Amino acid sequence: MSEFTAARAHDAVLRHVEESLRSGALKLGDRLPGERALAEQFAISRASVRNAIRALEVMGVVRSATGSGPNSGTIVVSNPSSALGGALRMHVASHQLPLKDIVEARTMTETWALEHAATAPWTPEQIDDARRLLEAMDDDGLPSQIFTLLDAQFHVALSALAGNVVVSTMMESMREAIRDYISDAAVRQGAWEEVVHVLRAHHHGIFDAVEARDGVLAARLVREHIEWFYGKAI
Amino acid sequence: MSEFTAARAHDAVLRHVEESLRSGALKLGDRLPGERALAEQFAISRASVRNAIRALEVMGVVRSATGSGPNSGTIVVSNPSSALGGALRMHVASHQLPLKDIVEARTMTETWALEHAATAPWTPEQIDDARRLLEAMDDDGLPSQIFTLLDAQFHVALSALAGNVVVSTMMESMREAIRDYISDAAVRQGAWEEVVHVLRAHHHGIFDAVEARDGVLAARLVREHIEWFYGKAI
Repeated sequence: MSEFTAARAHDAVLRHVEESLRSGALKLGDRLPGERALAEQFAISRASVRNAIRALEVMGVVRSATGSGPNSGTIVVSNPSSALGGALRMHVASHQLPLKDIVEARTMTETWALEHAATAPWTPEQIDDARRLLEAMDDDGLPSQIFTLLDAQFHVALSALAGNVVVSTMMESMREAIRDYISDAAVRQGAWEEVVHVLRAHHHGIFDAVEARDGVLAARLVREHIEWFYGKAI
Repeated sequence: MSEFTAARAHDAVLRHVEESLRSGALKLGDRLPGERALAEQFAISRASVRNAIRALEVMGVVRSATGSGPNSGTIVVSNPSSALGGALRMHVASHQLPLKDIVEARTMTETWALEHAATAPWTPEQIDDARRLLEAMDDDGLPSQIFTLLDAQFHVALSALAGNVVVSTMMESMREAIRDYISDAAVRQGAWEEVVHVLRAHHHGIFDAVEARDGVLAARLVREHIEWFYGKAI
């Protein structure tokens, strides 16, 4: 099969899956037909089918598992953040997406999210997710690696209150893309004891502003927080 | 090979490529070692190598071509927008990322981009790219499909003046994700003659604001433009 034909065979499967998802014929948790059935349906090689399924896997649209149990086969999932984050990270690594631009894009996204979070109709239970993370970070004995992990979850939980799934996905993707730089920075910042005090104070200020529904203040504080951290890190 | 081992084999190749890109050992236009060499280097199966390369392809990090010419083999490229846009589109199709949220995220991104474009240090040549697209859309005889194409390029060219590659990539990805909805909307809007007059007037206003370096006006006009269009389309 020529390269051209192979590309078209593969696109046909992707388009079919996209249309089935859009129409609702294929839903979260559904199983794709087997490799052989798909190959027959599109009159293409099983290698082309495998290629297309692999592409869907990388996009976070399906998960494949071998075996014959109830979890085997190719199942429709929804994993946009890890897929987009992984791709973004590769492009940051290849120096095609400058770290400075990611930090700027993150600032844009998170200030927007917190400004909207402050006025969005969240329930007490929803903001309690962020509060629990905030309070967990107050523990003095926390190793810096654990703090960094909770820190990331705190920012994502607070931004999620804005209720925009795409913005949350973008936030998580960018966070994933710069993950290693953040850990490196946390390690480089030898005076961790001093840094962690500032981080805690910032986090409490940001949380309080969202809880008090002051979107302008929340946006300003998170901007200063990000600029302060990257001013130290980059 | 168990599923677990296969996943680890595959991750090892991805991590190696990421580190090589970061260190500069692997650069844009470079060729990856062959399948067999990689399989030996990581002591994994050639199927695992193929899987990893396929993942890099889907992420827009490499392009594979068969044959033996100067363009054959697996070459490092940089194609983040089409990769991220394709994945986003799949997730929109699966109803996991609501169209309303994409439109809102696009408004956030484009208002930010135009506000920054107005004060960024672009050259006359750079803004002329957007101007040429603007003037091409003034042609009364243009079919709606061509207009829609130029329209997309106009928005991307104007946003690019802000000089943030990540934001431009996000813009293009979101545009790619909602491409079909935009074409559908253009078709549904039976009174195309009337719609196109409004679009032209909006575009000229937005362009003039950026050229006059009035970022606040540019941001406001592009927000109204997007809201007007999607008010009709969704």
